[in-house]
Amino acid sequence: MAAPPINIGIVGCADISRKISRAITLSPNSTICAVGSRSAEKAARFAADNGLPDSTKIHPSYDAVLDDPDVDAVYMPLPTGLHIKWAVAAARRKKHLLLEKPLGLNVREVDTILEACESNGVQIMDGTMWMHNPRTTKMKEFLSDPSEFGNLKSVHSCFTFAADEDYLKNNIRVKPDLDGLGALGDAGWYCIRSILWAVDFDLPKTVLALRGAVFNAAGVILSCSAALSWEDGKVATFHCSFLANLTMDMTVIGTKGTLHLHDFIIPFEEAKASFSASVEPEFNDLVTGWARGPRVVTVATELPQEALMVREFCRLVQRIKYEGGRPEKKWPSISRKTHLILDAVKASIESGYQTVHVAG
Amino acid sequence: MAAPPINIGIVGCADISRKISRAITLSPNSTICAVGSRSAEKAARFAADNGLPDSTKIHPSYDAVLDDPDVDAVYMPLPTGLHIKWAVAAARRKKHLLLEKPLGLNVREVDTILEACESNGVQIMDGTMWMHNPRTTKMKEFLSDPSEFGNLKSVHSCFTFAADEDYLKNNIRVKPDLDGLGALGDAGWYCIRSILWAVDFDLPKTVLALRGAVFNAAGVILSCSAALSWEDGKVATFHCSFLANLTMDMTVIGTKGTLHLHDFIIPFEEAKASFSASVEPEFNDLVTGWARGPRVVTVATELPQEALMVREFCRLVQRIKYEGGRPEKKWPSISRKTHLILDAVKASIESGYQTVHVAG
Repeated sequence: MAAPPINIGIVGCADISRKISRAITLSPNSTICAVGSRSAEKAARFAADNGLPDSTKIHPSYDAVLDDPDVDAVYMPLPTGLHIKWAVAAARRKKHLLLEKPLGLNVREVDTILEACESNGVQIMDGTMWMHNPRTTKMKEFLSDPSEFGNLKSVHSCFTFAADEDYLKNNIRVKPDLDGLGALGDAGWYCIRSILWAVDFDLPKTVLALRGAVFNAAGVILSCSAALSWEDGKVATFHCSFLANLTMDMTVIGTKGTLHLHDFIIPFEEAKASFSASVEPEFNDLVTGWARGPRVVTVATELPQEALMVREFCRLVQRIKYEGGRPEKKWPSISRKTHLILDAVKASIESGYQTVHVAG
Repeated sequence: MAAPPINIGIVGCADISRKISRAITLSPNSTICAVGSRSAEKAARFAADNGLPDSTKIHPSYDAVLDDPDVDAVYMPLPTGLHIKWAVAAARRKKHLLLEKPLGLNVREVDTILEACESNGVQIMDGTMWMHNPRTTKMKEFLSDPSEFGNLKSVHSCFTFAADEDYLKNNIRVKPDLDGLGALGDAGWYCIRSILWAVDFDLPKTVLALRGAVFNAAGVILSCSAALSWEDGKVATFHCSFLANLTMDMTVIGTKGTLHLHDFIIPFEEAKASFSASVEPEFNDLVTGWARGPRVVTVATELPQEALMVREFCRLVQRIKYEGGRPEKKWPSISRKTHLILDAVKASIESGYQTVHVAG
């Protein structure tokens, strides 16, 4: 018999909560139990606007959600600067945590949050949706196949979008006290995660931010790039920006194969997603064209990737709640590694583009 | 009345000469006049194997081609280390020069060659074929359109191929005395050229090689990466390698548009070539997919790009020979700029990955 669904409370009515409340509804093992905002009015409006079930409890504060005994787990899309307070509070009240990225403003904050989760037996997962797309599994199969891909040599990742004037003035992601990591913590998070994902979360030896980072008047990063290098010769670069046209690329090159995609974070289509796989392509005899080029691999998505994320999170919570299982350590571990690299890039920028050695 | 075709002599029977001899035949303003190799036998075999016209003169040495009064211009695919001798010799004998890249082992050699060409009124062009594909013109139109592309913010270029054991042991491109720039001079040439092309040949302020360059036992570069930055905030990265699967990417991101292609050096097909142009794409309401994604632009190729290169070279030579024109300075100028960056990357690697300031 399937375990009962997990009751999720939404802590904060950010824009992204609209997408996730739909995902919670779509996922077979979760229900929306409560919504809390800084006022009951705001929470009620959110519930009405997004067609949440009538049974959804409306809470006038974040605390009220955390105090609600019916809530098993919370989805928390608060500004990063508030995570240290509210994520720790949630863990202490034994609420499992689906926490938006980045998890904290630095690894110290992240460690505090992760320790609170661990000591309270609480599952934590960051909200990196593309990790849960079945395309991602298929891509990993390709990268892991020695006869198709060979050994990984380099990764390049890019996420840029053109924030408008209002965003650059008012969005939480350009405010030092709210999302102080700026474009690095937001767009760069995805780049770093994609690189680490490609190398099976093997940490690089060095990280170097590249000249040309752009800051706003408050010192928040609006655009930056970095290079990573590994002991065994692997190399990676990434570029992230709030100041350039929407672009989301991942390129992974091995000794035998190449993976390309241009929609790795948000797939072009919800119901299916593709990538390009090129395996030992060849030119024609006179090298005036390709005798064999890349192939397109398309993977159907039974549920949207964010619903699959919720489903996986709730599966882990069900295991803890109903089967006496322990929290899955994979998710906090990769969150922490992503943060280690974020911190290293920031440190490199702050040192005037010096190479930073990464300590695991 | 159209000017008579230009008589081209081929100096050296490298593999690439097969492709170019076909291109000379295809181009309407050129004829193959002579072939010279280190022996008459080798030259005769090349002529027979490639179906060159019976009228083609077979020369037993490079010198004999340069001394042939019927030869207007030479195509010279000799190893880079020999360019300084033979390209200068050609210029002194008033032979126009279609010279394979890289032009020399460093900018000093290149300057010697370019000065010999200039003082002898000789046209020089490097053999970078993709520059002449009509797709390249179409891509430049896209990048130059403020309403479609906006201002250029970043470029990423990559050219890798997996050289086999024999290549890594015996090919001229891994021999310090022949093509001493290795993967940087060969694959990296294309990356650097594509970046400079994208920024209208505006030289960067700084060049930094990235950690992780790979060398063979003789010290020749087999793989490397670099980052470039401009005074106005533009940034670029590239990766080149003989040690990874065949990949040839160019990505150019502006404030409004993004250009992508994965076959920029050798188009997938000879008769047409495509690129992806993305102009202010948008997500759907819940950000679960793209409401508007990239479009594919396809350009027909009336002649293969290498024939278009020969045609353009011969058009310039015809202008000099029949209309009293002067050599076109654009081509040597962009060759030289490409070499300035090659040298800067090499200097950065040799300095232990220090930033190099580029002097125009």
